[in-house]
Amino acid sequence: MGAPAARPPGDSGDPVTVAFDALGAEAETDAVSEGIRMAAADDIAIRVFGPAATFAGLASDQVEIVDTVEMIGNDEEPVRAVRSRPETSIVRAAADVAAGRSDALASPGSTGATMTAALFALKRIRSVQRPALAVEIPAPGRERPLLMLDVGANADARASHLVQFAYLGSAFAAAVLGLPDPRVGLLSVGTEEKKGSALVVEAHEALRGSTGIRFAGNVEGRDLIDPEVEVVVTDGFTGNVVLKTIEGTARAVGDAVRRAARSGPIAATGGLLLRPALGGLRADMDPDATGGAILLGLRGVAVVGHGSSGPLGIANQIRLAARSVREGAVERTEELIERSGVGRSAIRGAKGSES
Amino acid sequence: MGAPAARPPGDSGDPVTVAFDALGAEAETDAVSEGIRMAAADDIAIRVFGPAATFAGLASDQVEIVDTVEMIGNDEEPVRAVRSRPETSIVRAAADVAAGRSDALASPGSTGATMTAALFALKRIRSVQRPALAVEIPAPGRERPLLMLDVGANADARASHLVQFAYLGSAFAAAVLGLPDPRVGLLSVGTEEKKGSALVVEAHEALRGSTGIRFAGNVEGRDLIDPEVEVVVTDGFTGNVVLKTIEGTARAVGDAVRRAARSGPIAATGGLLLRPALGGLRADMDPDATGGAILLGLRGVAVVGHGSSGPLGIANQIRLAARSVREGAVERTEELIERSGVGRSAIRGAKGSES
Repeated sequence: MGAPAARPPGDSGDPVTVAFDALGAEAETDAVSEGIRMAAADDIAIRVFGPAATFAGLASDQVEIVDTVEMIGNDEEPVRAVRSRPETSIVRAAADVAAGRSDALASPGSTGATMTAALFALKRIRSVQRPALAVEIPAPGRERPLLMLDVGANADARASHLVQFAYLGSAFAAAVLGLPDPRVGLLSVGTEEKKGSALVVEAHEALRGSTGIRFAGNVEGRDLIDPEVEVVVTDGFTGNVVLKTIEGTARAVGDAVRRAARSGPIAATGGLLLRPALGGLRADMDPDATGGAILLGLRGVAVVGHGSSGPLGIANQIRLAARSVREGAVERTEELIERSGVGRSAIRGAKGSES
Repeated sequence: MGAPAARPPGDSGDPVTVAFDALGAEAETDAVSEGIRMAAADDIAIRVFGPAATFAGLASDQVEIVDTVEMIGNDEEPVRAVRSRPETSIVRAAADVAAGRSDALASPGSTGATMTAALFALKRIRSVQRPALAVEIPAPGRERPLLMLDVGANADARASHLVQFAYLGSAFAAAVLGLPDPRVGLLSVGTEEKKGSALVVEAHEALRGSTGIRFAGNVEGRDLIDPEVEVVVTDGFTGNVVLKTIEGTARAVGDAVRRAARSGPIAATGGLLLRPALGGLRADMDPDATGGAILLGLRGVAVVGHGSSGPLGIANQIRLAARSVREGAVERTEELIERSGVGRSAIRGAKGSES
C-alpha cells in the first residue's frame, strides 16, 4: 500500500541535519550551547531555532542559527497554540523538516506542543492509526535497552492501537537500538493471557496472532526493570504514569542513599569510598543518557527531549534524531508495517472495540 | 440508608479474633509459626486454618488450630475454585468471619482467591459498587503513610468506582492509619484537570464536586514517592502495574548499590561503613513492614497478605486485620459513605460512563 521506501538522508555520507528548538530548553543558554556543540562535533548539522542575539556565537559550518524569538509554553493548549502561532520555534522547526531543509526534529520544549507540531508537519505513516511516544526505560545495570511505548501520546487507546505500537516499537528497536528481532511484551497485571483490563486482554489475543514481530506475552510492572523482552507496549496513560514512577522511585532511593551517607562521620567515610563504584548506577539512571523520547509512526523523525536536559541531554536528543535518520527508522517502520499488513489486520483484530 | 453502625468487636477490650489462612503462605512452616506467635503476643486471638499435624505446636489460649488440609493455588481460576471447594483454607477462614467466630480475615495466599472468598462471604457495604484493594506504598524516608487504591481488585473501572474508592480510602486512612481528614489525589499524567484518560477526566470532575472528603486534584507517577496527599485513587490495572513498578525499581536500585559494594576492596569497605545507616532505607522498602493490602468496601475486614511474607510480614498482616477491627474501619466507612451520599452522587456523577 505505502509508497516505496525512500533512501534515508545521510545514507550517502552527507551529514544529517537536525532542526533543534532551542527555545524549549529549560537549561541556561551556556548549557544549551554546549549540548549543541557536542552534537555538532559528531558530524551532525544543526539548524538552531532560537534568538540570533543569544546563539550567534554557535554559528559555524555545522550550525546555523534561524532567528526565532517566540515559543509555546508548557501551559498552552498544544493544538490551539500550534495552529495559531506559526512563528514559534517548535512550529518553525517542524516546518523546516516538512520542507526538506532539515532531516529531523528535536525539541526539549513542551511535550504536547512538540508532538502536535510534529504530527501536523510530518504526518502519519499510511495505515498507522496513532503515533506513539517511545522511550528507553532507565534501569541499573541493564545490558540491553528496553523500549516502552506509548508513554504519553494517547491517553486512551484501542486494542488495534496497541497492536500497531508493537510494530512501531519493533521496527525502531531493530533499526536504531541495535536489537534485531526484538521480543515484544504487553504490560499487564499478570502473565496469563486472560489477565488485565478488557483492552489488554483483547490486544493480547490480537498480538498472539500477529506476524512479522516476536510477541512474548504479558509482562508485569516488576519485570520492567529486568525484562525478558526488549519492547514493552502499553497505552499512553499507563506508560506515562509508569515512566514517571520509575524515575521518581529511583531518584528517591538514590536520595536516601545520599542521606544515609551524610548521617554521621562513619557513614560519610563509607559513602566516599563507595562513591566511585556507584558512578555506573548514576549514569544508568540519568535521563540525559538517552536524551528523550521519540514519536513513532510519523513520516519523519521527531525527538521529544527532556525539558530538564543538561548539555549531555541536549546533545543526546540531537544525536538520537540524527541516528534515527541515518538508520532509516521511518523507512524500516514503513517496510515492516507494509510487509505484515498490520494496518489491515490490526483494524480487523480490534473491530470489537470500535465505538 | 445503611443500618446503624454496630459497635466494633474488640472495642470492649476483648481480644480481636483473626481467621488466618496458614496454607496460603509460601514461607516455611517455622517462619509462618513465628509470625503467628508474634501477632498472638500482641493480644490478638488467631484461628489458624492449616494442618493440625503441622501447626499443633502453636495451640495456646490465644491460638486455635482449625485442621484444614486443602488449599486454592495461585494457578486456579478464583471464582470457580472458591465456589466449588468449600473445604479449602481460604473459603473456611472467610466463612469463619461470616459466621461471627472470627472478626477478620487474613491470608497470604492467592490474591484472587482471597478477594473472591472475602467478597462472597463478607458481602459489599450497601451502596458500594465495587470493593477495592488498598495498600500502603513503600517509599524511602516517608513520614506519613500513602494509601493507594485500587491496586488490583478491578482491572476495569468506571468513574463512579474511582469516586467511591476516594471515600473508601479516606475512611480507612482516617480510621486505621492515623490520618484524619486525608487529602485524596487522583493518579493521572498531569496535574491539570483535563489531563488524563477519558475515565480520569470524568472522575476528576465528579471528585471536584464531592463532599465529605478532601480532594486535592491529580497527582503524577513521580509524586507517588513524595506526595502532597495521603490517599491516591486509580483503577486496579494502573494501580497494580504501578505498585509492582515501585517494588521492582526499588529492589533493582538496592541491588545495584550492593553490587557496587562488592566491586572491589575499597568499595567493599565503604559499603560496610555505610551499611548501618542504610538500615532505615531497607526497612522503609520492606514489603513485610505493612504485611499486605486490605480489601475495602466489604462488611468485614479482609487482609490480602504478601505471598512471600516472612515472619514479620505474617505478623503484620494479622496485626493490620486486628487493628482494622479495633478501629472500626468498616463502621467508619459505612458512616462516611452514608453521610456524604456517595452511593447516589457517584452514580449520578458517572452517568456518562454507564454502558
